[in-house]
Amino acid sequence: MKGTVLYGPGDIRFEDRDDPGIQEPTDAILRLAATCVCGSDLWPYRGLQPIDGPTPMGHEYCGVVEEVGSAVKSIKPRQFVVGSFATSDNTCPHCQYGYQSSCIHREFMLRAQAPYLRVPRADGTLVPTPGGTPSRDLVPSLLAASDVLGTGWFAADAANVKPGATVVVVGDGAVGLLGVLSAKQMRAGRIIAMSRHEARQKLAREFGASDIVTERGEEGAARISELTKGIGADSVLECVGTQESMMQAIQSTRPGGYVSYVGVPHGVELDGQKLFFSHVHLHGGPAPVRRFLPMLIDLILNGTINPGKVFDLTLPLDQVAEGYRAMDERRAIKTLLQV
Amino acid sequence: MKGTVLYGPGDIRFEDRDDPGIQEPTDAILRLAATCVCGSDLWPYRGLQPIDGPTPMGHEYCGVVEEVGSAVKSIKPRQFVVGSFATSDNTCPHCQYGYQSSCIHREFMLRAQAPYLRVPRADGTLVPTPGGTPSRDLVPSLLAASDVLGTGWFAADAANVKPGATVVVVGDGAVGLLGVLSAKQMRAGRIIAMSRHEARQKLAREFGASDIVTERGEEGAARISELTKGIGADSVLECVGTQESMMQAIQSTRPGGYVSYVGVPHGVELDGQKLFFSHVHLHGGPAPVRRFLPMLIDLILNGTINPGKVFDLTLPLDQVAEGYRAMDERRAIKTLLQV
Repeated sequence: MKGTVLYGPGDIRFEDRDDPGIQEPTDAILRLAATCVCGSDLWPYRGLQPIDGPTPMGHEYCGVVEEVGSAVKSIKPRQFVVGSFATSDNTCPHCQYGYQSSCIHREFMLRAQAPYLRVPRADGTLVPTPGGTPSRDLVPSLLAASDVLGTGWFAADAANVKPGATVVVVGDGAVGLLGVLSAKQMRAGRIIAMSRHEARQKLAREFGASDIVTERGEEGAARISELTKGIGADSVLECVGTQESMMQAIQSTRPGGYVSYVGVPHGVELDGQKLFFSHVHLHGGPAPVRRFLPMLIDLILNGTINPGKVFDLTLPLDQVAEGYRAMDERRAIKTLLQV
Repeated sequence: MKGTVLYGPGDIRFEDRDDPGIQEPTDAILRLAATCVCGSDLWPYRGLQPIDGPTPMGHEYCGVVEEVGSAVKSIKPRQFVVGSFATSDNTCPHCQYGYQSSCIHREFMLRAQAPYLRVPRADGTLVPTPGGTPSRDLVPSLLAASDVLGTGWFAADAANVKPGATVVVVGDGAVGLLGVLSAKQMRAGRIIAMSRHEARQKLAREFGASDIVTERGEEGAARISELTKGIGADSVLECVGTQESMMQAIQSTRPGGYVSYVGVPHGVELDGQKLFFSHVHLHGGPAPVRRFLPMLIDLILNGTINPGKVFDLTLPLDQVAEGYRAMDERRAIKTLLQV
């Protein structure tokens, strides 16, 4: 088969690689229905995160089980499954507490921008869709559940979004937009999306944003203060991962309010004393998508949510390099790759 | 009257000052029953926190109301009252959310190491003891409620201590010890106190600690890992405020667990990426003591708790300088000053 490999900044190649095979008895091999490019893929693509030589890419996936190892019990060939970007046994203490992305057996998935994928710990990582193979039009939304929706949902969950709450979402990438959708599902009273990009503002409104703020940094925080009568927001979802976005999030939150952060922070240093006097709750980390997958799949299958709308560019898999370019240049929110 | 003034590192003087008087119609003047020296007073005393010239000291107090301003409604002369180290109107949105120490009218108290004290926003800051003036033997515990108990309680509350939980307390100062007491009241299953000081270990056990760990830093975190079978603690109370203690706390917590920090951080910088992958909840700040005062006063008056035991040195107020020295040299956990 051919698969996606990053060679260096801006250098994505779709090239020959070995077909994946069962390596451990707990593995499954999937034939993917679709895969996609993640905002986090852009960090190494932009040279902002070092790589150790040529690196296979991709960690978002859904598709049909081709083969399972001898120790796999609940996952069966021909099932349509969605998995998380982090593998999990779903039985260790961390998994039982709902933090499957810190499973003692966690591996971060890689190599999913390809037609076939080996998934370790298949029983603990994959969730079959009830009712067999879903219709093709649901594939984008199910693919979104694999990471970007699960991460947006975790952002809202970790920021303690409650019915009636005033919520701010910092970041208008796919995760931020799905943070808006998630906060809406949790019945937030007011959802303020921070975005200066028209297409993204439109989608934010469609997903449930009540207000759009175009200012950033200190000015952004000042605007939130104005909108909340000087009090600050109850819940702020930080969906970028830079020092500016993190400080903007903390400064936008009322004392006793909640800040979540779900993108790997790059170059972020928090001053202990500033954080202390901000009086906020802070929680984040790699989203435990596995915790939310069964519920998210249900919400998609029954038509309650349509997170697949974040894919505003669809390309055949062999044009993956253009998919990266379009996202890097902010011509696309998120690129779906058809296998 | 005479009062306590810090002139520079190690230079505490008890010297003539003006008697406090009503300045605002919302003020009250108290004749203190007792006051004390706080661990946080040691930062400037040790020269680790700069001061702008001679600085009046003290922010923990209880005593009898002598006089109230014309706008004070609920607080009356002759009541025995306990107040927080942070003033509050107890009506603004932050107060209503339970974060009175971020009240829009907050002032940090100073000048309490003296016989008389002016308290701003008396109605929102002070809590009278039910049943009139309490017996003398309860004064140390009521004084503790003013800050050190309220702060220890907030540490346990912010670390989400639940019945049956495994709790770690980092720091064996008075706040840490009362964090142990608070976790016990919240019915923690196991309370691990980190201390290498015999008298403090003894008091920690008396307050409810089930285990004592003497190692610190990375070794301390490794010992907690061992004691929790590699999982980490559910709730960790950081009651010191240094980089080492903060990292020790974070490293001792399981993914999804809770870290609280209640001492003003000094020189603490949190690396965003390390915090992200630790997967912990983090909450802290100046303790909203006012939120807990009515309940804490009840627990003291009905004999359920005896937090006054943290005072292992009692001196007349005019020997305040020796009170600081004894705490600085760790000869005393906490010094009570009799007025």
